Amino acid sequence: MNKLTGWDDTIIALATPPGVGAIGVIRLSGARAIELVNRLFPSKNLLLQAAHTLHVGLLKEGETVLDEVVISLYRNPRSYTGEDVIEISCHGSPFVQQQVIDACIRAGARLAKPGEFTQRAFLNGKMDLTQAEAVADLIAANTAASQKAALHTIRGGFSENLKELRDRLLTFSALIELELDFSQEDVEFADRTQFYDLINEMQTATGGLIQSFSLGNVIRNGVAVAIVGKPNAGKSTLLNTLLNENRAIVSEIPGTTRDTIEELINIDGILFRLIDTAGIRQHTTDTIESAGIERSLAKIKQADVVLYLFDVNGESTELTNWKKEADEAGLRYLLVGNKIDAGDEAAARLRFSAFEPVVYIAAKEKRHIDVLRERMVDLVLQGQVQAENTIITNARHYHALQQVAGSLHEIKAGLDNKLPGDLLSLDIRRCLHYLGEITGEITNEDQLDYIFSKFCIGK
Amino acid sequence: MNKLTGWDDTIIALATPPGVGAIGVIRLSGARAIELVNRLFPSKNLLLQAAHTLHVGLLKEGETVLDEVVISLYRNPRSYTGEDVIEISCHGSPFVQQQVIDACIRAGARLAKPGEFTQRAFLNGKMDLTQAEAVADLIAANTAASQKAALHTIRGGFSENLKELRDRLLTFSALIELELDFSQEDVEFADRTQFYDLINEMQTATGGLIQSFSLGNVIRNGVAVAIVGKPNAGKSTLLNTLLNENRAIVSEIPGTTRDTIEELINIDGILFRLIDTAGIRQHTTDTIESAGIERSLAKIKQADVVLYLFDVNGESTELTNWKKEADEAGLRYLLVGNKIDAGDEAAARLRFSAFEPVVYIAAKEKRHIDVLRERMVDLVLQGQVQAENTIITNARHYHALQQVAGSLHEIKAGLDNKLPGDLLSLDIRRCLHYLGEITGEITNEDQLDYIFSKFCIGK
Repeated sequence: MNKLTGWDDTIIALATPPGVGAIGVIRLSGARAIELVNRLFPSKNLLLQAAHTLHVGLLKEGETVLDEVVISLYRNPRSYTGEDVIEISCHGSPFVQQQVIDACIRAGARLAKPGEFTQRAFLNGKMDLTQAEAVADLIAANTAASQKAALHTIRGGFSENLKELRDRLLTFSALIELELDFSQEDVEFADRTQFYDLINEMQTATGGLIQSFSLGNVIRNGVAVAIVGKPNAGKSTLLNTLLNENRAIVSEIPGTTRDTIEELINIDGILFRLIDTAGIRQHTTDTIESAGIERSLAKIKQADVVLYLFDVNGESTELTNWKKEADEAGLRYLLVGNKIDAGDEAAARLRFSAFEPVVYIAAKEKRHIDVLRERMVDLVLQGQVQAENTIITNARHYHALQQVAGSLHEIKAGLDNKLPGDLLSLDIRRCLHYLGEITGEITNEDQLDYIFSKFCIGK
Repeated sequence: MNKLTGWDDTIIALATPPGVGAIGVIRLSGARAIELVNRLFPSKNLLLQAAHTLHVGLLKEGETVLDEVVISLYRNPRSYTGEDVIEISCHGSPFVQQQVIDACIRAGARLAKPGEFTQRAFLNGKMDLTQAEAVADLIAANTAASQKAALHTIRGGFSENLKELRDRLLTFSALIELELDFSQEDVEFADRTQFYDLINEMQTATGGLIQSFSLGNVIRNGVAVAIVGKPNAGKSTLLNTLLNENRAIVSEIPGTTRDTIEELINIDGILFRLIDTAGIRQHTTDTIESAGIERSLAKIKQADVVLYLFDVNGESTELTNWKKEADEAGLRYLLVGNKIDAGDEAAARLRFSAFEPVVYIAAKEKRHIDVLRERMVDLVLQGQVQAENTIITNARHYHALQQVAGSLHEIKAGLDNKLPGDLLSLDIRRCLHYLGEITGEITNEDQLDYIFSKFCIGK
């Protein structure tokens, strides 16, 4: 494990969002955290207080009262970082908070870098790298599914699995390397059949995890949805109906941007991003009006899912054209027949029966919107692993797993071709390396700095 | 004391600012706060835990994990509100926070109204009304002076003073009302000389507090400053020089707006608001160019202080005109001679000697800016009470104190005219009423609701 520069410092940062609130929390971590705050807290001697206790009093620098605060006291190793930790709960004025932070810095703390608290938790063995990364994901969580996936990872669900496989591979690796020492004697310490079984098992597990990434990506970043259709098909009515009932609570990690996304909705814990909705709202002219799908493809290709909305009281010819081109373009789409209440429903359903499956709705009257929502979720989850399992949501893990899969493939080929142990051993080491990189057992300082630099300050 | 509707409820709100951060804190207060959170916290039985302790564990609703949290436990009466209080420190995702709040509401809490936590603290006698109001001021504090004034009031500095005077007046009031029972006998229980002395003392105290309001207002709202002068006098250079060294950390209470203020600077703990600075930045044409001050008065009349900036290497005639009209308009202004480094300094000082006091600076070279800052602060504090004393920052207190002063005047006139006790008694009661209204000893529910509705939710 690499030690970091400034590792012995006591660090400080505002842990709550910037801005005005009832309270703000300032966090300190490090060997001197308690002693240092104690100097500013004349009410009682914090050095003598038990761990996991709360203390109310004035924070003073010399004779200047900074604020009336509550101190939360945690002692090494029973804290978030594994070090001594003090949290100062002060009044929610950014000015007062800055005064408190400045006073602590004058007393000997230094400002924390982004993610440094979590980085220390990782370096002190309080969590592995996937768990640390999931903390950032949880902070950015904006649906039940992303919350669940992040919590699952924080609690070790993902890495336990990988660690167990890695340990078993390590055993085989040791046995095969042992064989090399006896290479003249043509012995096999590692049972090749059992080894083959392990590689198969690992391929299945890795394959499942890799496959889960597209769902994981959806959970983390949302599903881009485009609502298209001819003018007066009811696109903006449908948009408003979906928004009114499902508008998502949005949270963004500072520094991430999401193109031109305007509206987010949350259906059954999955985040749908309605792209280019401004276009729907502002233009009455249609992008798919006449010839074909070409002109709208530029917009549609940003979408994971396309909702093609049509008026069931119109002709079916428009659908024929659209469906043909959408299929050729390989789009994932739903055909949505609108205004089912406005005319002869039975006749309409018959007229469009050749295009099944079609979801029939009445957007204005809010009829069958629940069916549409269900089908949108189905389309996303279609043939993918269920949310109960471990789901990869992190691109870094995804790429490492692809490397793992590649080396597993090589190992298998090596076994099939009865490759000598020394060559086999190289592939095994490569596989172990990438597995270790995911959970942080193998790291380098640059990589760590990169991962944690994407955290917010104070975490 | 009036009881409030919903007084028995256990209330909940996010106490930290909305948005993404490392953590967020959710606060509950009420008789059922501990029991209710305990249902969602399977790790241990919170009902059995000591006050002022911290507890780490999972927050779960049924089988659904909501978050990994830290619980701060406070027991009645040793808490902010004087009730049982739980603070849940959860991950800083607005979505996760909403889930936790929703789960607590399903368990029996209700959303707190703005200021309801502090209102409960007031109703439970944890603080008087001036202290409660100062909590809101402290949250909005953006300079050392406003922080200090609010903390002074929170710690009771203001109301102790008034309560003591009110108690002494109450004694006299009782004695004078006793005289009424013996009105046929022409006795005087209340020593008129002592009473006269008390009224004098109260007048001095009240007068000082009323006078402090203009400084208090400055401390709370800042001093509006207009920088004016001919083109090329160096207005935007001066603005930038002031901003670079003194830009204030800004915090606003939601719902308050401040006209078109653009830039804030903090000098010696006093907030200066540079008004209409956009005009300085965008226009090179001048508003005071030719005839006189009339055209610019519209802007200048918003300012508490005007800095008139002129080029010391130019003619002195512009100053003659400006000073005359500014004096007639009763402006508070500073004459600031710029570009003192650019020519013959001695000649320049001589040329403008008739206009003393003048502050000579070189804005571009950042020379003598400290002198200018000092003079700006002097202009504000001029002849006013010092910040060590109690300072009225609240308009409600100011108006009540004016009523107190009015009734003190009546009492004194009554004593001078040997008014009968029953009439004197009426004025004394009026005086007691307004004093009690400041500290909250006399209140009505509407008034309380109004005062606390201006708080942020969660406080």
